[in-house]
Amino acid sequence: MTNLKHNSSKGICLWLTGLPGSGKTTVAKAVEKQLFDRGVRIERLDGDVVRQSLTADLGFSREDRDTNISRVAFVARLLQRNDVVTLCSFITPYRAQSDIVRDTVDDVRIVYVEASVDACVERDPKGMYAQAKRGEIKNFTGIDAPYEKPVTADLVLHTEEETVEESAKKIIDYLVQEGVEI
Amino acid sequence: MTNLKHNSSKGICLWLTGLPGSGKTTVAKAVEKQLFDRGVRIERLDGDVVRQSLTADLGFSREDRDTNISRVAFVARLLQRNDVVTLCSFITPYRAQSDIVRDTVDDVRIVYVEASVDACVERDPKGMYAQAKRGEIKNFTGIDAPYEKPVTADLVLHTEEETVEESAKKIIDYLVQEGVEI
Repeated sequence: MTNLKHNSSKGICLWLTGLPGSGKTTVAKAVEKQLFDRGVRIERLDGDVVRQSLTADLGFSREDRDTNISRVAFVARLLQRNDVVTLCSFITPYRAQSDIVRDTVDDVRIVYVEASVDACVERDPKGMYAQAKRGEIKNFTGIDAPYEKPVTADLVLHTEEETVEESAKKIIDYLVQEGVEI
Repeated sequence: MTNLKHNSSKGICLWLTGLPGSGKTTVAKAVEKQLFDRGVRIERLDGDVVRQSLTADLGFSREDRDTNISRVAFVARLLQRNDVVTLCSFITPYRAQSDIVRDTVDDVRIVYVEASVDACVERDPKGMYAQAKRGEIKNFTGIDAPYEKPVTADLVLHTEEETVEESAKKIIDYLVQEGVEI
């Protein structure tokens, strides 16, 4: 990566953090679709996307989770500074990981996708909470691994009260408010 | 990464392959500087850059080298399709790796940076050939690991005969010929 200064980027990175099943990817996909239709440069990264190649070797240990965040933040940095609106949906269970993200990406905002563990267990879109409760998955965030709520989120979505459309609109409105050309 | 179609990218990826010391990074830096000065969206990736985070875990085994190429190609794909001129300087010693690159990145050209092993050993900018000859580094391309010359390079640079400026100009001319807006 160049060390030359990218001063005039129109890109921004929104880093969505929250429990498994909180709705991070669902909301990100809704935002992605709307921005893409408007011709905005947009990329969406989440575990399902990056695990194919970028993080294929990583598991759920603390060290692996840190490495996962670091690698994705590296990529998000490159995209953001080249005028891409970059949506990253990762559990990011430790506050120190949000710090890594803030330290790596030039223009990034932390979006806390809030939902209670009970609500997420109820949704369980991938059946993983059930597996974790049966002990078939270890170190599963919300069951036997911690989730530290972010203390300095730039935006909070409440997916138990909001529809997907409402949460997506909050993000779009936030981008407009922040001066992103969309 | 979105599955939505990016049809109108103005980006291109140039993937520079060649022996250690062949001049890949030196030429890429010269091109980068010129394009950056013209206001072109440009990123340059090489081992020194990505090893800090993206590929920190990888060594020089065949498997690790393949993984290295796959991860970088993943990133190059995202940049290229978002209108970034992406310069990647990696030894890429196996033809199968160039195939991975071509399969991953939508618009990529292979640039063979040609120089003889003798010339590269003579230059030895990082002192690594000397270390490899003393057996301090194993699996070093050109000494005890193979380099398969690409058979389908889109552009060939001859860094034993050309100056850095001449090689850089060949790349710039190639980009213009290919219709890249620079």
